Formats: sequence, structure tokens, C-alpha cells
Amino acid sequence: MQTNLSAALDIGGTKIAGALVDDRGRLLVRATRPTPADQDGATVFGALAEVVAELAARPEWDRVAAVGIGSAGPVDARHGTVSPVNIPGWRDFPVVAEVGALTGRRPVVLVGDGVAMTAAEHWQGAARGRANALCMVVSTGVGGGLVLNGRLHPGPTGNAGHIGHISVDLDGDPCPCGARGCVERIASGPNIARRALERGWRPGPDGDASAAAVAAAARAGDPVARHSFERAAQALAAGIAATAALVEIEIAVIGGGVAGAGEVLFAPLRRALRDYATLSFVRNIEVVPAQMGTDAGVVGAAAAAQQSCLDAFVPTV
Amino acid sequence: MQTNLSAALDIGGTKIAGALVDDRGRLLVRATRPTPADQDGATVFGALAEVVAELAARPEWDRVAAVGIGSAGPVDARHGTVSPVNIPGWRDFPVVAEVGALTGRRPVVLVGDGVAMTAAEHWQGAARGRANALCMVVSTGVGGGLVLNGRLHPGPTGNAGHIGHISVDLDGDPCPCGARGCVERIASGPNIARRALERGWRPGPDGDASAAAVAAAARAGDPVARHSFERAAQALAAGIAATAALVEIEIAVIGGGVAGAGEVLFAPLRRALRDYATLSFVRNIEVVPAQMGTDAGVVGAAAAAQQSCLDAFVPTV
Repeated sequence: MQTNLSAALDIGGTKIAGALVDDRGRLLVRATRPTPADQDGATVFGALAEVVAELAARPEWDRVAAVGIGSAGPVDARHGTVSPVNIPGWRDFPVVAEVGALTGRRPVVLVGDGVAMTAAEHWQGAARGRANALCMVVSTGVGGGLVLNGRLHPGPTGNAGHIGHISVDLDGDPCPCGARGCVERIASGPNIARRALERGWRPGPDGDASAAAVAAAARAGDPVARHSFERAAQALAAGIAATAALVEIEIAVIGGGVAGAGEVLFAPLRRALRDYATLSFVRNIEVVPAQMGTDAGVVGAAAAAQQSCLDAFVPTV
Repeated sequence: MQTNLSAALDIGGTKIAGALVDDRGRLLVRATRPTPADQDGATVFGALAEVVAELAARPEWDRVAAVGIGSAGPVDARHGTVSPVNIPGWRDFPVVAEVGALTGRRPVVLVGDGVAMTAAEHWQGAARGRANALCMVVSTGVGGGLVLNGRLHPGPTGNAGHIGHISVDLDGDPCPCGARGCVERIASGPNIARRALERGWRPGPDGDASAAAVAAAARAGDPVARHSFERAAQALAAGIAATAALVEIEIAVIGGGVAGAGEVLFAPLRRALRDYATLSFVRNIEVVPAQMGTDAGVVGAAAAAQQSCLDAFVPTV
């Protein structure tokens, strides 16, 4: 017997990726368009509609039982709308209704991209088999998601796990979100690079002033570059420890470009966790790199669609 | 038909309270002993056993279906043990097995005292009917618990919701837990009093240097006293906002002696929340006083026992 498929859509500021995904997480069909992020909302939706049309033209489409959307946030799963920071043409854009109309009224599930990444790592990656996990993306921004009691915890609006915007330094630098001292304000790639430059680190002859270049300098022993990663690690550790104290997680999975720095990030992160995760029930958190890579978005959107379909048949107490 | 009852035990550093509680949260029978906290573990258990014996001597005892224990932490629900900071004679004390032996092998559920208070507020108090809530006690320490998706979230070890020991000031003052800048280190009653004294506030002729006395001075307009409460409110706001960003809560319920300061605490807390809870999905958190008072511990222990008995009959996915 042929099993059901999920149609998965991953909406980001750079590209819109789609896939048909089977119940074991394999990508049978892919479709992608660049996101025309600087254009009006209808043009952005045109690109999304092209991705859907390309998937719907395939014979496998008839087996699609549900549609999952992972989107750059903020999202509002309650109202089925998205307002991605990097797509100004979409504000309260009713993506669930619009995609529903394109996909024959199949159930459509919307989650934030951090939640989608988490669903992917829990289903197929580094958080597989874990009952309580935090998964994070540390990149241009810092996002995340939670698995609690063995299940994805998207929260009522699909935004839960927003670890990038918890304040770990209540008197710290203002964050674009309006608060101060947020994890993202200290630990994101651009902030790692900014801090290194402010303290005197200079890029090499190629002019690369990215966090990856700071990581290379740190690996070569540059103390300012190392310090910038250590400060990022400290903020991440405080955020991970806070999450563990609040909901009890056994593992933190970290992906995204900054995690690509490897031990330059992970070694000070594990050290800093010993400073901040001190209570008996949080002391043994594992910290590991993510495994899902660039497919995490679509695989996770498919996972969210599948969990949601299961939920529909589960009696609630 | 007579309904089932729960036996509830609330173990604190000052007293051990017990009750028989019906399925509507009414306390039918009470028993209490002072906690001999400075004595050996067997003596402490003797006091607990007396509370149980007093309950078990009542005719209502035959209707007891389950036993709930809420204990000062840390607790370890996985192993059924407790190691309350303020009861040094109990370290990894097997309270679940010992109470089970006294209560005829009825099911025994163990949660931390913050989780128990949360169960009480969700069942009968200020978080009633709320699907996603944080409940806190701000007192000598700062504790808490979470309701997620309409259900208590104790976490695997029964300690979830430990908001007092999340760091909101990663370079801040060392906390007895080993970390720095924890919410409790800034917002607990003793820390409110300490900060006021350090900045020049002086108690009145009665010599009362408690947080309640600082609150009275703040109410009378003393700027140092006001500042100390404002700083506590800022730390609580950062912690509540972090919780909302991580799990999406709609309401924060605050009890404990410091919450008794009323608007001296709640007014700056609501202001500070506007500074830290800035994302669209966290912006509208309600902050309200707790309603359950001193019975929260036993009512909550009973609620945890009842939820756990229900869970036993719910199929898991």
C-alpha cells in the first residue's frame, strides 16, 4: 500500500522551498523559488503559488493528506497569518487560507521556522527519541523550538521556543525587538562579528568580516576573536539553562551557520553551561550540533503536518 | 454516590501540612505538624508519619484513591526522592516509597512545591480555565510552575517552572545556586530588603527590616524603598517575558509574601513587562495576584494526584 504524503513549504527571506515528504521523512519531490522579499505581497505570494503548482503537477500529489508550512516569524497559527520581519510585503498575510485554496482544502498547519527545524531534528535528527529537547538555529538571528513530553510544543500561536529574544542581560544593549540583552543581541553571527570588530579584530586580506571569519581567527588563536565567541557561548548557555530550569530539557541541539564554527563555539558553551546550569535537574544537559542541514525546514514542516493530523484522532482530556 | 478523595501532603521547611481533599478541591480534613528541620531524617519522617496517621484515622480515609505530595525542592519525581534545601536531614530521601508504605500502596505522586501551587491556582484560583499559565511564589525564595496546553507541566523530575533560578543578568551577583543574576537573587524578599538597606533605607523604630517593611516605606513614598521594588519587578518581568517567549503563556499569577506588597510590586512589574515582553505573541500577558493563599500547597498536591490518576487512563500517542 502506498502511504500518505505531506506537502511541506518552508518560507524564508531568501527562498521559498517546497517538497512532498513521505511518512519516513524522505523528500520525494522538491521545488524552490527565490523569495522576492523586497516586492509587494502579491508578488511574494506568486512565488509561493509557483512552488505549490510545481508540486501539484506531480502524480504523487494525489497522495498528499496534509500541508505543513514553516515560516519566518512572527507567525500567528491561531489566525493562520504570517508577518515575516524580512518580507515587509506580508503583514498579517493569511497564508493558511491562501495555501488552503491552492491545495484543495487539505488541512494546512502553520508553525514558525524555529518550531519546524525542531520538528525535523526530533523526527530525523539529533533530538530523535528525546522526550524533552530544545533545538536552536544560531545564524543571522537566533531561533528555536521545543519538544516536551515527546511532542512538538509550538504553542498556541506557533512561536514557542523563541530563545533568541529572552533577555539574559536585563541592563544590556538594546535589541531591535525592543527589549535589552536578548540572547540574539549577544550570540547571533552579526553580533559576534560586530563585537570582534569593536574590540580591534581586523579581517584578513579578503575583507571577510563575517562570524565565520571570526571563527577562523579564533581557531588560529586570536584572543579577541575567541573572546567574542566565548561571550556568545555565555549568552547561549544562560538561555539554555533558563529553558532547562523552566521546562526540563535533556538535550540542546544547535544548528545554523554559527554552529558551523564547531568547537570554537561548543567548547566554551559547554564550559559556560557548567556556570549557569547548576540545579540538580538541569546539570546534565547534553549540547550537540544539529544534523538536518538545509532540508530541516521542509522536513520539519512535514513533521508538523503529520503530528497535527495524528492529534485530530487523539481524544483530549 | 460518594466520590473519591485525594490525600495531600505539603512538605515545607516550617511545617508539614496534610489534608483529605475532594474532587472539587474542598478540604474535608486537615492535619499539621511543625517540621523538625534541624533534626535527623528519621525525626523529620516521624512528623510526616504523624500527619499521615492523623488523616488515616478518619472514616473518610477509605475513599482515598491517590496520594499527592508537594515538597520543597529540589525533588526527583523520577526516583521518588526529595532533597529540600531547608531540611538537611533529607538528601535523596525516598519519600514516595515511605509514604506508599504508610498509605496502603495507593498511587503516590510527587511534585515540587512550585508545581503544586500552580496546580492549585489552575484548579481553583487565578489561573482557572487558562490553557497556558505561569504561577509563581515570590517570598523567601522565588518558585513557580507551568500549565501548558491546559495541563500541569511538572517535567520529568517534577521541578519544571523553576523561574527563580533563571539568570536575567549573566554578569550579575553570584546566587547561592552557583549561577549569577538569577531572578531570585534580585527579586526575593530578603534581596529586596538587602538592596534597600545597602542603598541607605533604614527600618522604623520597630526595627522591622523585612521586605514587608520596605513595601510600607515604598507606599509612603521612600525613593530607595521604591527603587528596590522596581528592580525586583524588572527581574520578574524579564523572567516572565522569557517564559512567555519560550512556551507562550497568557497569564502570570504571582503569590507569596512579596506579592502581598500589592501595587508597590505589581505597578512597576506591569511597566517593566512592556519593556521586556515586546514580541507580538507575548505582548498581552496578564499579571494577576494569586488567589489560593496558604492552602495552595495541599490543594495543589491533591490536584497533581488527580491529574496523574486521569493520565493513567488516557492513551498516549
